[in-house]
Amino acid sequence: MAAPAFLPELATQVVVPVAAVVGIAFAVLQWVLVSKVKLSPDPRRGDGSSPKSGAGASEYLIEEEEGLNEHNVVVKCAEIQNAISEGATSFLFTEYKYVGLFMGIFAVLIFLFLGSVEGFSTKSQPCHYSKGKTCKPALANALFSTIAFVLGAVTSLVSGFLGMKIATYANARTTLEARKGVGKAFITAFRSGSVMGFLLAASGLFVLYIAINLFGIYYGDDWEGLYEAITGYGLGGSSMALFGRVGGGIYTKAADVGADLVGKVERNIPEDDPRNPAVIADNVGDNVGDIAGMGSDLFGSYAESSCAALVVASISSFGINHEFTPMLYPLLVSSVGIIACLITTLFATDFFEIKAVDEIEPALKKQLIISTAVMTVGIALVSWLGLPYTFTIFNFGAQKTVYNWQLFLCVAVGLWAGLVIGFVTEYYTSNAYSPVQDVADSCRTGAATNVIFGLALGYKSVIIPIFAIAFSIFLSFSLAAMYGVAVAALGMLSTIATGLAIDAYGPISDNAGGIAEMAGMSHRIRERTDALDAAGNTTAAIGKGFAIGSAALVSLALFGAFVSRAEISTVDVLTPKVFIGLIVGAMLPYWFSAMTMKSVGSAALKMVEEVRRQFNTIPGLMEGTTKPDYATCVKISTDASIKEMIPPGALVMLTPLIVGILFGVETLSGVLAGALVSGVQIAISASNTGGAWDNAKKYIEAGASEHARTLGPKGSDPHKAAVIGDTIGDPLKDTSGILFKWL
Amino acid sequence: MAAPAFLPELATQVVVPVAAVVGIAFAVLQWVLVSKVKLSPDPRRGDGSSPKSGAGASEYLIEEEEGLNEHNVVVKCAEIQNAISEGATSFLFTEYKYVGLFMGIFAVLIFLFLGSVEGFSTKSQPCHYSKGKTCKPALANALFSTIAFVLGAVTSLVSGFLGMKIATYANARTTLEARKGVGKAFITAFRSGSVMGFLLAASGLFVLYIAINLFGIYYGDDWEGLYEAITGYGLGGSSMALFGRVGGGIYTKAADVGADLVGKVERNIPEDDPRNPAVIADNVGDNVGDIAGMGSDLFGSYAESSCAALVVASISSFGINHEFTPMLYPLLVSSVGIIACLITTLFATDFFEIKAVDEIEPALKKQLIISTAVMTVGIALVSWLGLPYTFTIFNFGAQKTVYNWQLFLCVAVGLWAGLVIGFVTEYYTSNAYSPVQDVADSCRTGAATNVIFGLALGYKSVIIPIFAIAFSIFLSFSLAAMYGVAVAALGMLSTIATGLAIDAYGPISDNAGGIAEMAGMSHRIRERTDALDAAGNTTAAIGKGFAIGSAALVSLALFGAFVSRAEISTVDVLTPKVFIGLIVGAMLPYWFSAMTMKSVGSAALKMVEEVRRQFNTIPGLMEGTTKPDYATCVKISTDASIKEMIPPGALVMLTPLIVGILFGVETLSGVLAGALVSGVQIAISASNTGGAWDNAKKYIEAGASEHARTLGPKGSDPHKAAVIGDTIGDPLKDTSGILFKWL
Repeated sequence: MAAPAFLPELATQVVVPVAAVVGIAFAVLQWVLVSKVKLSPDPRRGDGSSPKSGAGASEYLIEEEEGLNEHNVVVKCAEIQNAISEGATSFLFTEYKYVGLFMGIFAVLIFLFLGSVEGFSTKSQPCHYSKGKTCKPALANALFSTIAFVLGAVTSLVSGFLGMKIATYANARTTLEARKGVGKAFITAFRSGSVMGFLLAASGLFVLYIAINLFGIYYGDDWEGLYEAITGYGLGGSSMALFGRVGGGIYTKAADVGADLVGKVERNIPEDDPRNPAVIADNVGDNVGDIAGMGSDLFGSYAESSCAALVVASISSFGINHEFTPMLYPLLVSSVGIIACLITTLFATDFFEIKAVDEIEPALKKQLIISTAVMTVGIALVSWLGLPYTFTIFNFGAQKTVYNWQLFLCVAVGLWAGLVIGFVTEYYTSNAYSPVQDVADSCRTGAATNVIFGLALGYKSVIIPIFAIAFSIFLSFSLAAMYGVAVAALGMLSTIATGLAIDAYGPISDNAGGIAEMAGMSHRIRERTDALDAAGNTTAAIGKGFAIGSAALVSLALFGAFVSRAEISTVDVLTPKVFIGLIVGAMLPYWFSAMTMKSVGSAALKMVEEVRRQFNTIPGLMEGTTKPDYATCVKISTDASIKEMIPPGALVMLTPLIVGILFGVETLSGVLAGALVSGVQIAISASNTGGAWDNAKKYIEAGASEHARTLGPKGSDPHKAAVIGDTIGDPLKDTSGILFKWL
Repeated sequence: MAAPAFLPELATQVVVPVAAVVGIAFAVLQWVLVSKVKLSPDPRRGDGSSPKSGAGASEYLIEEEEGLNEHNVVVKCAEIQNAISEGATSFLFTEYKYVGLFMGIFAVLIFLFLGSVEGFSTKSQPCHYSKGKTCKPALANALFSTIAFVLGAVTSLVSGFLGMKIATYANARTTLEARKGVGKAFITAFRSGSVMGFLLAASGLFVLYIAINLFGIYYGDDWEGLYEAITGYGLGGSSMALFGRVGGGIYTKAADVGADLVGKVERNIPEDDPRNPAVIADNVGDNVGDIAGMGSDLFGSYAESSCAALVVASISSFGINHEFTPMLYPLLVSSVGIIACLITTLFATDFFEIKAVDEIEPALKKQLIISTAVMTVGIALVSWLGLPYTFTIFNFGAQKTVYNWQLFLCVAVGLWAGLVIGFVTEYYTSNAYSPVQDVADSCRTGAATNVIFGLALGYKSVIIPIFAIAFSIFLSFSLAAMYGVAVAALGMLSTIATGLAIDAYGPISDNAGGIAEMAGMSHRIRERTDALDAAGNTTAAIGKGFAIGSAALVSLALFGAFVSRAEISTVDVLTPKVFIGLIVGAMLPYWFSAMTMKSVGSAALKMVEEVRRQFNTIPGLMEGTTKPDYATCVKISTDASIKEMIPPGALVMLTPLIVGILFGVETLSGVLAGALVSGVQIAISASNTGGAWDNAKKYIEAGASEHARTLGPKGSDPHKAAVIGDTIGDPLKDTSGILFKWL
């Protein structure tokens, strides 16, 4: 073999944990900065709320609310925030109880299954890939895999939970900051998003690093066994993510659809009106679905791509020759990613401050560009320092020679494909461009044309992302086989801290708008939060685009790992077994979507009935003199989502098992490939269609251009048609959000 | 080799053409029976209009129209029919002019391409599969392939055109018969459908048979070259079908959406109201899209599956040993199919007569069951008499031994899978079952839930058909490789005459209803034609289900033929080239759908503008005192569809070429497989969603049950929501209709 990597083992042992700790510290710092916005009525109002402008200066920036005194507004905001936070916490605890039970059973099954393969043998066995060496006994592998599984699940759970906590902590604060201008509100929302982003990226990396080192004490020389056990971490993360996504998704969309159908359509009251009994459930939903769910989800993809890369590396030259630094290359990439994202975040929160509503989207877009640019340099550095000039990679039974610059290309192509997907998603879902404006325009002829144009937009938006994904796969697969695909996925996820910050920013802004409405704040404040929210819809779609793209790469990498483990070297479409797997696999996302859409639909109908009941039976509700019973609506969403998450979850978990046992690994390979290639299309199109409808509605409501004003105002026929599209979009976005966990 | 087939060559040479001639004669007989319904005002009104009941008896059955005398109604019906027929004829001629030009160019390209492979050599060459023999020169193959291509295109064109002619001949006659009761009207509509079904099935078979015999005079012993040249027939049929489908589809849906949006939604006038300027275009559309387009289409699938089976057979033991009867097994299956369908038709038109509205759907369903049952016996007979007990089939470079009963199973599994698909489609799209009723019920909460439930229904309806298709593929592929898949497709299409009759029945009934409305006939007549039409929506979906299912099998067979010709023996998903082909291929149906939906959308917007213009500028139009300008609307649909069919057509024709040239055959294989497995899902779900929405609307309008009445009447909020769903469904059905030509 050629010369080893420049970076000595010791340096790697320092760089990775330090980057993780820096990430966590940065998250804590952001939290502290957000917490300076006081939520208790304070005579020295606004004091220290902005780290950049002096307390005295900022004080005068707060607008006087007409007919409302300062004290009341702050108290009201705090109250609403508490209600949302409590609802979200109680839902997550309920969810975690059920999921915890399930994960416990699953952990035992994993242990029994892995242990039984070699009859719970406690004897060392000959290694499979490092010929002539002895590896640890099967029982140890089973035990450590199970521990890794639990670790992954717990990290995912904690990440999601903390993300939800900071989001519900920040939403009212964003509303209050909106009084000082859109720039301050943006910074608060974005900072809170970063807390979640950095916490998740850094703790994911940190736990994985610790686990490798701790497991290493036992495993010693047996890297094959060590990294096989580590894969449990990815499985745990993604299993947890599945339930978080499905449960949270059903919760949020049932509440959203239910609230809109009665409130906006039947009663003609605005979105987030406090008279709507489902309004708290709706806001809780954003936090449990789009924050906790999405957080768990991206963590799952991140953990899986790291583990997929590690397990392939362990049976390649790094693993066989025990080269520690190149072995940990995936973790080094993530470490540099945290630093790159940290620099990027400063551009949004400290180096510049946005002044006007139309600067929000460009600011978020700049985040994508800056993080990608900085990270490209970072990857080059890591690939140069952390890898030997040449090495071999395991490729379906053979070893393939790879150069370090080739691996740089693999990671970089994933990263840049992510940027392309982000841009295309923005183009198709932002109301600054013609596609969404065309959809808004089609509302002129009613809801039907709105739906037709929206669906066509979604279909069309698939084209470029698929080419981007296909190109990354082709390049990385050709250069470094499945290892290349895994690191390409990791490349796309390397800026996860920024991606998640942008993504979490959306629901926080959405909630901030809801709180402004519920607290009865002025039209001007609501306009600002609406602008933040519209940008948030786009970023949510971008986040989903990233998640879908990386999930496609990750699942291909996992597919490759599965095929390698099953010792299959070809999956031939020209055999009946594989072909029927392919066609049935391509059907599964439809089955799954039908299940989740139906679940959202029936949960929404229950919600509609309850909201109607309250409007009809609670006197004074429409007049605003009585408070609605928010808790019952929260309970309906909770119960429905817990109950309804089981069938789709079971479909996802059981299909591979049943197909594998009944039809064998060839058919299973076909099923996995079919589900992957078909699911990624539905997921992207559904996500973008939903985002476009939401923003077409917002475009009409905002009335920011001559064209938009001809379609509005709120309550006009085109606006009503747009609201219908938006409502349909909710479960579609959800379906897509969930679908990519299927991948 | 074992004993030859029982049936001697001479018998085969008699059976096939006789069956074809019988089929054509039966079609002519049905036409004569339909023509007995007089469309000119006749003092001896109704004379001989029904072959079963005497003239005197039937006369008294005609209800008196209130406020309208007999003479006027008949004259009006005849007038409207003429307008529809002229519009359809003029559109088809325009379409054929453009398509003819294109097909001419394509024919020249085929000749040049095939000829150039061996440098336009006029020398005989050694055979590829029959070792040691000499085959005809490349130039001859190029010439005969081109002739076959033209033959296929012309047969497809003539079939579609004649189908349209009989349909526009029968629609007003169905309306007039509806005065005598639903049974008579049903028989007229169904007979007219049969004319098209038998004409198409029989002439397709006849032309193919003649071509084989005529080409055989030149080719003599060289069966390899003969059947290779014959494949041009399939290509010609399906290329023609592509344009017929896309052009006709855009035409019909633009007119439909445009007419509905202004008429039903804005002006609140009923469907098919004569005051609507787009009403004639709408009715023309049914004939050019759903009749001529669908006819060309199924003919294309039929021709392709026959040719795919023949070309594989020619390089199998039949071809190499020159066994004529087994070689023509695919044609024998089709011959028996014509006879089986003939018997089946008598059950609908002569053995029984339906008495009430709710007997329509069961009668059509019985057609499916009877034809399948009779045909199963027919296949057994043909497989026993027409095949040797054992033979070998070409299987990706090797020969595979097959028994005659195995081939019986291949054909039968295709046939029965077709029945399963038909039943499932009926279940999901008929308003007699809970899925459509649930969708109708969801209209209570507005258009948004209607769309959500409709989409979920479509997704769900994919599950069983895909399992049925997967099972047929698995069985037929395992038993007899690609030959098995081709004959399974042929099995599904063997009852094509009945399938097309059922399918064509739909638009004829739809038109009949339109004519009743336009002629101002009574509510009772309209109720009957509406019931016929509702059943027609279901049968249209069933027809599409069959078409999609068989297209999936056919395209797999063609894929196999392509792979065999390209001398590929594995298509390995675990290579980057194939995998990116798969994922990009799975994207193509989305691209294609986006194009066609956008085309329909923009054509519909043009139509909307024109209809609005007429309502606003023509005085007395809404009052019914002035006639609208129907011709301009017909022209808008014609121009739009001719212009808009080019990009999607180009995408379908050019993709294989571009991918093949730039990325090679492995990637192309991946693209074809990906497009197939992804497209079949979208096609089925879109078709069923559209059918379900249409019938949910009809369910509310008909108000036949307690539940339905709580949702109605026409004009209620749930009904308005249902109309929106129906309008969205139009381009969806269309997309699906077109999509399976993609396959």
